[in-house]
Amino acid sequence: MIKNKKVVLAYSGGLDTSVAIQWLKDQGYGVVACCLDVGEGKDLDFVKQKALTVGAIESYVIDAKEEFAHGFALVALQAHTMYEGKYPLVSALSRPLIAKKLVEVAEQAGATAVAHGCTGKGNDQVRFEIAIQALNSELEVIAPVREWGWSREEEIEYAKRNNIPIPVNLNSPYSIDQNLWGRSNECGVLEEPWAAPPEGAYDLTASLETTPNAPELIEIEFEKGVPVALNGDQISLSTMILKLNDIAGKHGVGRIDHVENRLVGIKSREVYECPGAVTLMNAHKEIEDLTLVKEMAHFKPVIEKKMTEMIYEGLWFSPLTHALQAFLKETQQYVNGVARVKLFKGHAIVEGRTSPNSLYNEQLATYTVDDEFDHTAAVGFIKLWGLPTKVHSMVHKKGMPVS
Amino acid sequence: MIKNKKVVLAYSGGLDTSVAIQWLKDQGYGVVACCLDVGEGKDLDFVKQKALTVGAIESYVIDAKEEFAHGFALVALQAHTMYEGKYPLVSALSRPLIAKKLVEVAEQAGATAVAHGCTGKGNDQVRFEIAIQALNSELEVIAPVREWGWSREEEIEYAKRNNIPIPVNLNSPYSIDQNLWGRSNECGVLEEPWAAPPEGAYDLTASLETTPNAPELIEIEFEKGVPVALNGDQISLSTMILKLNDIAGKHGVGRIDHVENRLVGIKSREVYECPGAVTLMNAHKEIEDLTLVKEMAHFKPVIEKKMTEMIYEGLWFSPLTHALQAFLKETQQYVNGVARVKLFKGHAIVEGRTSPNSLYNEQLATYTVDDEFDHTAAVGFIKLWGLPTKVHSMVHKKGMPVS
Amino acid sequence: MIKNKKVVLAYSGGLDTSVAIQWLKDQGYGVVACCLDVGEGKDLDFVKQKALTVGAIESYVIDAKEEFAHGFALVALQAHTMYEGKYPLVSALSRPLIAKKLVEVAEQAGATAVAHGCTGKGNDQVRFEIAIQALNSELEVIAPVREWGWSREEEIEYAKRNNIPIPVNLNSPYSIDQNLWGRSNECGVLEEPWAAPPEGAYDLTASLETTPNAPELIEIEFEKGVPVALNGDQISLSTMILKLNDIAGKHGVGRIDHVENRLVGIKSREVYECPGAVTLMNAHKEIEDLTLVKEMAHFKPVIEKKMTEMIYEGLWFSPLTHALQAFLKETQQYVNGVARVKLFKGHAIVEGRTSPNSLYNEQLATYTVDDEFDHTAAVGFIKLWGLPTKVHSMVHKKGMPVS
Amino acid sequence: MIKNKKVVLAYSGGLDTSVAIQWLKDQGYGVVACCLDVGEGKDLDFVKQKALTVGAIESYVIDAKEEFAHGFALVALQAHTMYEGKYPLVSALSRPLIAKKLVEVAEQAGATAVAHGCTGKGNDQVRFEIAIQALNSELEVIAPVREWGWSREEEIEYAKRNNIPIPVNLNSPYSIDQNLWGRSNECGVLEEPWAAPPEGAYDLTASLETTPNAPELIEIEFEKGVPVALNGDQISLSTMILKLNDIAGKHGVGRIDHVENRLVGIKSREVYECPGAVTLMNAHKEIEDLTLVKEMAHFKPVIEKKMTEMIYEGLWFSPLTHALQAFLKETQQYVNGVARVKLFKGHAIVEGRTSPNSLYNEQLATYTVDDEFDHTAAVGFIKLWGLPTKVHSMVHKKGMPVS
Repeated sequence: MIKNKKVVLAYSGGLDTSVAIQWLKDQGYGVVACCLDVGEGKDLDFVKQKALTVGAIESYVIDAKEEFAHGFALVALQAHTMYEGKYPLVSALSRPLIAKKLVEVAEQAGATAVAHGCTGKGNDQVRFEIAIQALNSELEVIAPVREWGWSREEEIEYAKRNNIPIPVNLNSPYSIDQNLWGRSNECGVLEEPWAAPPEGAYDLTASLETTPNAPELIEIEFEKGVPVALNGDQISLSTMILKLNDIAGKHGVGRIDHVENRLVGIKSREVYECPGAVTLMNAHKEIEDLTLVKEMAHFKPVIEKKMTEMIYEGLWFSPLTHALQAFLKETQQYVNGVARVKLFKGHAIVEGRTSPNSLYNEQLATYTVDDEFDHTAAVGFIKLWGLPTKVHSMVHKKGMPVS
Repeated sequence: MIKNKKVVLAYSGGLDTSVAIQWLKDQGYGVVACCLDVGEGKDLDFVKQKALTVGAIESYVIDAKEEFAHGFALVALQAHTMYEGKYPLVSALSRPLIAKKLVEVAEQAGATAVAHGCTGKGNDQVRFEIAIQALNSELEVIAPVREWGWSREEEIEYAKRNNIPIPVNLNSPYSIDQNLWGRSNECGVLEEPWAAPPEGAYDLTASLETTPNAPELIEIEFEKGVPVALNGDQISLSTMILKLNDIAGKHGVGRIDHVENRLVGIKSREVYECPGAVTLMNAHKEIEDLTLVKEMAHFKPVIEKKMTEMIYEGLWFSPLTHALQAFLKETQQYVNGVARVKLFKGHAIVEGRTSPNSLYNEQLATYTVDDEFDHTAAVGFIKLWGLPTKVHSMVHKKGMPVS
Repeated sequence: MIKNKKVVLAYSGGLDTSVAIQWLKDQGYGVVACCLDVGEGKDLDFVKQKALTVGAIESYVIDAKEEFAHGFALVALQAHTMYEGKYPLVSALSRPLIAKKLVEVAEQAGATAVAHGCTGKGNDQVRFEIAIQALNSELEVIAPVREWGWSREEEIEYAKRNNIPIPVNLNSPYSIDQNLWGRSNECGVLEEPWAAPPEGAYDLTASLETTPNAPELIEIEFEKGVPVALNGDQISLSTMILKLNDIAGKHGVGRIDHVENRLVGIKSREVYECPGAVTLMNAHKEIEDLTLVKEMAHFKPVIEKKMTEMIYEGLWFSPLTHALQAFLKETQQYVNGVARVKLFKGHAIVEGRTSPNSLYNEQLATYTVDDEFDHTAAVGFIKLWGLPTKVHSMVHKKGMPVS
Repeated sequence: MIKNKKVVLAYSGGLDTSVAIQWLKDQGYGVVACCLDVGEGKDLDFVKQKALTVGAIESYVIDAKEEFAHGFALVALQAHTMYEGKYPLVSALSRPLIAKKLVEVAEQAGATAVAHGCTGKGNDQVRFEIAIQALNSELEVIAPVREWGWSREEEIEYAKRNNIPIPVNLNSPYSIDQNLWGRSNECGVLEEPWAAPPEGAYDLTASLETTPNAPELIEIEFEKGVPVALNGDQISLSTMILKLNDIAGKHGVGRIDHVENRLVGIKSREVYECPGAVTLMNAHKEIEDLTLVKEMAHFKPVIEKKMTEMIYEGLWFSPLTHALQAFLKETQQYVNGVARVKLFKGHAIVEGRTSPNSLYNEQLATYTVDDEFDHTAAVGFIKLWGLPTKVHSMVHKKGMPVS
């Protein structure tokens, strides 16, 4: 055993990482606990103290909400990241930031290793480990839960033996992760894809059956693609997202039930709640619809899809992600304006949108007498647009079979 | 004037195409009227007769609902075609079929020309004309409305002079197109994108405020990607779509408000209602999520996007569309199963899905003791998956800037 | 040790797989050797006998050249598969066919396992193992070379102890794989990317310095994308490729020097020779340029790139590969015609191409008096094609910065 | 006729634009001639004077070589722009720069219109007109050649009548455009795609039959993707390209014979010569192969293809092109190093490449005892990489049909 060997552990305050503190001590490490607040609303003081109680030699808590909002959630918003068309990348977004903080703490604390509480079959282990290697490839990465390979019973037995507090909700059937951008929930009863998720699976959102019977209208203002004001009040981005989680959650917005393909090769069924994320993405998309030229509107989704996959697959720190962000940033230059959103019965419907940079031109679009569009131009356009098809048809005497 | 010159006109029964009959007669044509039923619920006998009344020499009505359902709507369903992420291609889908029927009638009737009622600034003129050229490049294509260039008042004046009946709803502010797959509505008050669409803009769907307060659960069964049974009853595809328009419409499903980029280079604001289409697409996607392997699930959207653009842009009869369909067909081989959909307050939520071809494997996905996933495999996977990032980081000493 | 446990080994006749026969016997297996001829010009009788001599209980040789040509090389030809723009997938193409034959022999011979001679850092282990699992997931897969982990010296020592013949060219610095579609070569002196490959690294192609000083003109005829005749003589596809390897190789065509990204996360430097493949791909592309409509010509590369990655990454038997092939097949319908190729000094230059399905139309393309193109149509086309850019510019008062 | 109406004409000194000066005068314009040197090696003084001689009221010549090199050719180099895999965008690149200069001159000279000499069936009219509108949508654009619609004979007759000099090479069968990045040639004998291009079609490159019998080795150094030194000498980018046109042209590098799909819907056959461009692109690609991580190397081609299409299709000033450039710029950060290129018999073969940012790692790639790659990691990797295929196979009992 090397003396004074230190490890920085991503500490949540839960059973797994509490047990991990003791387990890492058993391996000869001095454990530095590190807990990030990325918007899940934890009692940070309690968590900080608990780490010390169960054996950490140092314990840090870091409020990273605004950094998470601007550096990560904003990318997801502007890139409309929806993995497989459904999942807004909740946990996938926070992992690189947590990894970055772990590495910073490790470098400051003189630690030689970093540890996380992931198991061996999820996506998060991949995201943590690749991010850590990208930031400091000399740090050892330890995954206690994956390594000890204990059953739940064995883990509890070990915890009891080592005086580690057993949580009261130990029998919760769910495995939860939460941050500003939403809440994910897997396991237990959700594992049967024919079964509807029970109400207990949800926490941030009201059920449709219990949402208010009156809609709520809000206005979100964007500057260069960044939401800057809610109903006319300038607020910080993290505040904006948390407020919208609250308001839109009350109206049942943002429940997602997804059978997804994990990076590690299996399908799993997850339930997500992202009221703020869904509301903001809807609003942002409408401002883009008004302000982006057609060819941009049609190509940006290619970048969005790649960005989504890069983040989901743990490659946030790849140079490719950085280049995709450079593209993304350039696209947001004219994304200014206000969206009026109706929150009602699980919907965040954009009813109206306006922009100083709007490319919607009533004089061109109208069917009234104000029409400025040159109708005869269409004749020439159609002739050349359809010419390849026409020549093909002339050469082969007839069109393709219909279907 | 050439004697016996005949033109086949796509006849709707409305003012524009009724006036077009007379206008084409003025140009020396014998007009053959042709009206297709693609699910908009027209009184076909009335339309057939009206054409003759206003001057057509022959008048045909064709029930093309089932052909439209299988040859066109099904492609849209299986390809999840959503133009710019929002519009399920209602009118874009029917144009190639109408063109095909016009050409068939023209060839049978010995006509030398085909005519449609589109103006010079929409997408449909492009779709009609390219389709007609693809199917028979020797037919002349005439666009009376585009050519006469009259104001509304001039058109009415001309109609009155020629004893063409003026519709009672002449002052309707909307321009509507409808088929099985949905209903589109443009113009008038919708031209201000900040204004919410008025209730009068909608017809197929109830407003959220008036939908039932109890959800309705339905089960849709798919065989090779084709919806074949509703709540256990085998029904034809066109019946399925019409029934779902009815049931889901009652619950307010499928309202879409879209500022879109037209092929002809302008932005326009349209309102769509697609209750059946949206319900079926949601259900179909969930069966795919269960039965497609990951790499298929991640690449199929590339095909879907291209298919959507090809159809929107009037290139249904291009050889590329045909090749995309060959891909699509191959993907549907295992898309079997049942989706349970909850219709409620504008939502078509898939609560449960099951398939004999499900690739979801509880033994692999579970976090219980039944777990058969090899957790240690992840270690090797992460090592190689992250190796390029790690080598990049080692070479350049540090990771990329965070954002 | 289970009695009568049998393994089918992909046997090449070389040192590694000869040692593997003995090593598998040590593990208690009866070894069934299986050697495929996919066009590398092996002495199959010798290989068959050698397997028995070094201890196999059964030995099969299979001439799979024509099956390889039609089922695999043809896909590569029609999809213009060039990994990273450079490598025509030589080994990647043969692996799934070899796997298929191994599985067939295993099922016939009642074997419970299949073995291959790959190491732990190449791509081929991935291709073999995924293909075998796809075809029969109950077969165990053994990789003796990866498992024994011996140094070269230890392996030779083991061979000597077990009377396994040591090849005379043991000190060859190269690691070679070859089939109809080409020859790959890695290792040794090639590992320094600044060094030019030595002449000894090549075998199928003459050096530019020694190629004939007179060009050779050949004509290749295609039917539905399949090369069917060389200089007017109908020949089988495998004969076509082998002949072109010979003729084009003599002119130095098809040398490739590539620093590539392996699936397993590292870069390696490889040298390939593909005279027939390069000649055929050049010729095929030109017939496509003449016969595919523009939108097909512009989208097919997306399919080609995905197909290339799927094959390179060992996913031949994925449903996605099958769907990509369905697309590909559809595209070849009109790819008929003849290309005249000039083989000279390392080039396979298509000097002329002709097709009964040519969409090149002299009356449209010409600048002579025969011109049938409607020049005025361009005015309307430009107006609408440039409209989004124009509106954007009008709204924002000026264009984008130049660069 | 408006008094003092001025038009700025893109003047080349050839017959068409000389006639256009007179024709524009006939329309009542004062003509300001503007000739750009983008590397075609014109006698600018002669051209400037000729414009005045044939009737221009002002005449400007602008040396834009270095601006063209850095702002346009460099984008083409770094994006490896090859339209349809073959054409390096020669004319397409210069059009936006010429348009920009025309607009600048028009704004300075107080002109209300801009004119170009393109016909109605090429791509360049589209590129010019959209670029001009993007930069100043208030300028009228005139295309005299397209408008007058004369036959060659009529044009010559008009020229004679107006004392416009008739060029001596009037009967040249070719239509040429040239700049730093290469030379394009269309028409005449090239219009038969089965015929080989005659030697007279080429000017920048020697025929393979006449190239030197000894190769020439050169070293090109890149800094952040910009070629900065040739054989160790720092030179400006425009000098680099011109020098390479000379050196590589002598060795016959860069002849291209292409049946291409024009934007205006027809196929045409063109011959290009791009010795410098091809040499630089080959060299640049090899430095990228050494320095880009795998996921970047695999996605960058998607951007490259879009960039190529945007430029070819006249959309240089679209916001999308700008966003693609932002991506591109980010990718070049580590593209440093030297490529050793062998110019010989029409080839520009990169024999060696080296970089301080090389991600090629001999310790990982080697098969010698220095091997640092973890061979056992592959086992876990294969397990998870192939898991979707395996589960699919287990569920469906057998693999996909082979082909």
